Amino acid sequence: MISEFDLIAQFFTRPTRRASLGIGDDCALLTPSLGHQIAISCDMLVAGTHFFSDTDPRDLGHKSLAVNLSDLAAMGAKPIAFTLALALPAPDAAWLRPFSEGMFALADQHDCELIGGDTTRGPLNICITVFGEVAAGQALRRDHAQMGDDIWVSGTLGDARLALAGMRNELKLDPHTLSKAAARLHSPSPRVALGLALRGIAHAAIDISDGLAGDLKHILERSRLGATIEVDALPAGAMLSSQPMELRRQFILGGGDDYELCFTAPPSSRAAILDAANSTGTPVTRVGMIEQLPGLRLIDSMGSQVASSSGSFDHFLTK
Amino acid sequence: MISEFDLIAQFFTRPTRRASLGIGDDCALLTPSLGHQIAISCDMLVAGTHFFSDTDPRDLGHKSLAVNLSDLAAMGAKPIAFTLALALPAPDAAWLRPFSEGMFALADQHDCELIGGDTTRGPLNICITVFGEVAAGQALRRDHAQMGDDIWVSGTLGDARLALAGMRNELKLDPHTLSKAAARLHSPSPRVALGLALRGIAHAAIDISDGLAGDLKHILERSRLGATIEVDALPAGAMLSSQPMELRRQFILGGGDDYELCFTAPPSSRAAILDAANSTGTPVTRVGMIEQLPGLRLIDSMGSQVASSSGSFDHFLTK
Repeated sequence: MISEFDLIAQFFTRPTRRASLGIGDDCALLTPSLGHQIAISCDMLVAGTHFFSDTDPRDLGHKSLAVNLSDLAAMGAKPIAFTLALALPAPDAAWLRPFSEGMFALADQHDCELIGGDTTRGPLNICITVFGEVAAGQALRRDHAQMGDDIWVSGTLGDARLALAGMRNELKLDPHTLSKAAARLHSPSPRVALGLALRGIAHAAIDISDGLAGDLKHILERSRLGATIEVDALPAGAMLSSQPMELRRQFILGGGDDYELCFTAPPSSRAAILDAANSTGTPVTRVGMIEQLPGLRLIDSMGSQVASSSGSFDHFLTK
Repeated sequence: MISEFDLIAQFFTRPTRRASLGIGDDCALLTPSLGHQIAISCDMLVAGTHFFSDTDPRDLGHKSLAVNLSDLAAMGAKPIAFTLALALPAPDAAWLRPFSEGMFALADQHDCELIGGDTTRGPLNICITVFGEVAAGQALRRDHAQMGDDIWVSGTLGDARLALAGMRNELKLDPHTLSKAAARLHSPSPRVALGLALRGIAHAAIDISDGLAGDLKHILERSRLGATIEVDALPAGAMLSSQPMELRRQFILGGGDDYELCFTAPPSSRAAILDAANSTGTPVTRVGMIEQLPGLRLIDSMGSQVASSSGSFDHFLTK
């Protein structure tokens, strides 16, 4: 039986490049840059709740870190480091090797290093806490949207939810559609570069992990404002196009796991936002407007109100 | 069914006092003090591995944070904040209320605030990441022990392991002994004040979570030195006194969950250490010496070598 220390040494210990002290002491030590704040986010992924237990461990290593980097992106924070706590039913090198490779491949892309954590016996559970840096006062917060702001989203929405529907047999999908959609579900690209480029431009931002409608509501509630979204302007995932309109809207508005950014900015910043999108290679779409009247209203391209079930937009989803 | 957001609001959201931004955004924001490093540690506690699933939730809330604060203590770092990720089989207010009360009671003692985290459905799993501050260069590291240093331990050792033996029916204990010993197991007091007082005095420190012998070996390996411990000088837990000598030694050297500090310092600092102990109300005992020769040697009060099984000192323990 491989021990905890062997596990850490074999799969998770790499030379420390940025942290003042990495794995191997009671604590890691980070030395913050002068005038910067440390942004901290934490996500726990559980087998059976967040992923199927037969998920490719390489995808899972990528995704576990990606969902955390996405939170840094939504703050406009530059990734620095992360900790990994991992509960495993048994130490299994055939699982740990691809898991660690998937995780480190993404970590290296963002120059974000593993500085500590914990490994233990237990039902499969992956808990990552990520650390970023942002100049004091520059973070993109949820509570800073302003009346008259445009509402933007990055990339496209709904394909991750479509994959889930296929995997759960809620929908019958052809293998090509399922496989393309599943790539969005399993291997999201956190919008770190866009988040950094939006500092000083966007007023408020959030990452879309639970569905656009639900996540935008967090911005509205914390900013004490409302919004109207034009549903036909929303950028649908490529694999959604052959689905019926009602389901398309539902998955775009209520489907989670997209890990795109939703952000608000004044109309005077439209050119700056398109520059930020261009320079980071990230498509962005303007989808609505922040208003004084509380609540979220949906309109179609004719300006007619679209009915939505209160609360969740996703009638399937029961997580 | 209570939702994640309701859960967080009801049991875990309190006004933010120190952090620049607390619960409720994509990330929390900490603003480090000038010239200070951020010390970070992360521990995951799993039902069935680290605690019995019927453990009093108030004790569990205390202990989950205590084991993390103990890591800050071992670095000489001042607690600032923590994140909590919690997987629960079902949202259960009757469990969450005492759990959160136990956790916050200890957090308040150390002025350490909850700034974020995650709650999800899954087998019971508690993952806390804790943040402390320490002036750059002042942290008590494992790799800074020096030849000729005294080895010290705080408090007493072995009672937590004795309680575990009683609860597992490895030993028959009378109810009074079991209850007193179990208090050490379930409600450890992290030695934060002592850790802070030892900055600038101790060379190296570690907290004793896996047993003195195993944890001291981490200091020895990272400092590339060895040590001799006088086993009869080791401070035994009060409840161990009526146990046979062999078992006493075994539990003192190999029993985990004591959460005392083991630290090294030059003989010239003995008076300063006793001052630090006095001013923080923490008993400390000098138990051995750091030597050039690698490895850990045990002697009795007559100076005779005491045999020890290689590797683990705990023949019962199989975690």
